[in-house]
Amino acid sequence: MTSRSSAPSPSANPVHVPPSDSRQRVSQAFQQLQDSICQQLEVVDGQAAFQEDSWERPDGGGGRSRVIKQGGVFEQGGVNFSEVWGKNLPPSILVQRPEAAGHGFYATGTSMVLHPRNPYIPTVHLNYRYFEAGPVWWFGGGIDLTPYYPFAEDVVHFHRTLKQACDRNHDAYYPNFKRWCDEYFYLKHRDEPRGVGGIFFDYQDGRGELYHGPDQDGPAAQHSRQVGELPSRDWDTLFKFVQDCGNAFLPSYLPIVERRQNLAYGDQERDFQLYRRGRYVEFNLVYDRGTIFGLQTNGRTESILMSLPPMVRWEYGFEPEPNSREAELYNTFLQPQDWVNWPDA
Amino acid sequence: MTSRSSAPSPSANPVHVPPSDSRQRVSQAFQQLQDSICQQLEVVDGQAAFQEDSWERPDGGGGRSRVIKQGGVFEQGGVNFSEVWGKNLPPSILVQRPEAAGHGFYATGTSMVLHPRNPYIPTVHLNYRYFEAGPVWWFGGGIDLTPYYPFAEDVVHFHRTLKQACDRNHDAYYPNFKRWCDEYFYLKHRDEPRGVGGIFFDYQDGRGELYHGPDQDGPAAQHSRQVGELPSRDWDTLFKFVQDCGNAFLPSYLPIVERRQNLAYGDQERDFQLYRRGRYVEFNLVYDRGTIFGLQTNGRTESILMSLPPMVRWEYGFEPEPNSREAELYNTFLQPQDWVNWPDA
Repeated sequence: MTSRSSAPSPSANPVHVPPSDSRQRVSQAFQQLQDSICQQLEVVDGQAAFQEDSWERPDGGGGRSRVIKQGGVFEQGGVNFSEVWGKNLPPSILVQRPEAAGHGFYATGTSMVLHPRNPYIPTVHLNYRYFEAGPVWWFGGGIDLTPYYPFAEDVVHFHRTLKQACDRNHDAYYPNFKRWCDEYFYLKHRDEPRGVGGIFFDYQDGRGELYHGPDQDGPAAQHSRQVGELPSRDWDTLFKFVQDCGNAFLPSYLPIVERRQNLAYGDQERDFQLYRRGRYVEFNLVYDRGTIFGLQTNGRTESILMSLPPMVRWEYGFEPEPNSREAELYNTFLQPQDWVNWPDA
Repeated sequence: MTSRSSAPSPSANPVHVPPSDSRQRVSQAFQQLQDSICQQLEVVDGQAAFQEDSWERPDGGGGRSRVIKQGGVFEQGGVNFSEVWGKNLPPSILVQRPEAAGHGFYATGTSMVLHPRNPYIPTVHLNYRYFEAGPVWWFGGGIDLTPYYPFAEDVVHFHRTLKQACDRNHDAYYPNFKRWCDEYFYLKHRDEPRGVGGIFFDYQDGRGELYHGPDQDGPAAQHSRQVGELPSRDWDTLFKFVQDCGNAFLPSYLPIVERRQNLAYGDQERDFQLYRRGRYVEFNLVYDRGTIFGLQTNGRTESILMSLPPMVRWEYGFEPEPNSREAELYNTFLQPQDWVNWPDA
């Protein structure tokens, strides 16, 4: 063990106290993020508009779900804002944050999943969230891309845009959160990443630690736990970082849509897209932390499962043809790669 | 509390010792069940044949998976036999059978899911399984029906056939196992049963107890735990019961296929079938004991997930039109009902 690999323990630095208006500020920022995303996506889609459902949670809180269906670009997309509170966090979270036991909680977040119709446009997922519970608070979330027929230049553009947003805040963020994303969006029963990743982080509370994984035994789980060390960060510093991440979504994704939305495709590409969407369903129902949190806390089922694709196919024993474009997805893109330094892109 | 509702504790009666050839006898019976089911289903389908994959499990055991695809009747169907062994049962089972901790285990089973193309033919699921682990052994399983556009006479026929098979063994079986089935195949996050049920049981080891539920908070969970009391049963008595249940599948289901396979349907019926198949996916990935056991014990993923439908649809916020046939499914059939005494059937 070198001194570099001995990450600071969670209690090495004190947790800063959030400002008195923390909940309002985060909630407002997450609603603005939802607004700006929906507004731009409607422009890009050109045909369909988001329909909004406002809802209340019987046990406390509520949200506004916005769904776009059968659009020009988006076969289905959902952008949710929610703000909920209650008496106890579910056991799956208390294991990670035992200090929260016996305290009421507050949680707010914006989450988004877009399923484009054209198989050359990747599916994209975003979620940023904030929790307070007794003595602890934290930010979590991320954004990740799931292509069907990928172009390396699209994946590189996506990752470089995220890295720029991270680097404006701290140069240790991107390498750690990129690796955490590769590890988190991983289907253990398939031994397969969900897509080409992006960034993911959880339990960011200003203590030095960046990396709390692994939940699973993914390929990244063998890596050392943290790249570099960080000073203690205060609440405002982390809040700004999460806002920067949220604002990076549109410039990371819209250029990909614009480049690919007019590419012609046929039944083969469509069939493969529907097949690969099955992996999305498997991940979200078996592993996803946000889905499980929602179902465990009696969230609004239709809003939680809005992430599931509108049409999906399973096929027993499917294997891509050797040297096909489908095989290239598995062999090149569904492997953790150093996308920001990818050659020739 | 009446004396009737105080069910005997699991240790009230001793566990009988299985015969020395128990594993071979059950394994052979489950393979014969797979054979006879596949043979008859091919006759009924008329177009497609089952394709078999034999597989070995690296940690011990293996199986033979048989899949029929794009048939005359069956859009997809799978009938699996497996026989696996290993060092430790997964935690989810050890909670129910702590006596098995620290012992190797043996498990064998036959499972089947059929997804017909015609929305007037219900999806059907069967699974019978046998476990040995140190001092304990048990049988489990059942069969249940999931219609899209149901006919009461089909549901009544299905339940009456199962009741006859149960009654030949003990008249307390059907009422208990029918109720357990209603409780088990229940989607908590939808507050909705998966279908019209059938029979389900688990941990049957000859001790008096019939009923170990609930795992969830389904509508049946409020009922008293057991109808009637049973004498201690030996291994052979239970083995015969499980065989009778397995043999009841073909007469319970094939008459329904024959009656409905030539009914004409259109896009509306097909769309609703694909939408309702989404519930099947949600149940199997979020709740199903067999799926979770398979994934937790590094089973063969393609064989485990063979239960997922070939084509599925999700639709945000879907509600059936009032007084429609789709609404009738929800209001009449997706409610626990006393099907064997249904009027006018």
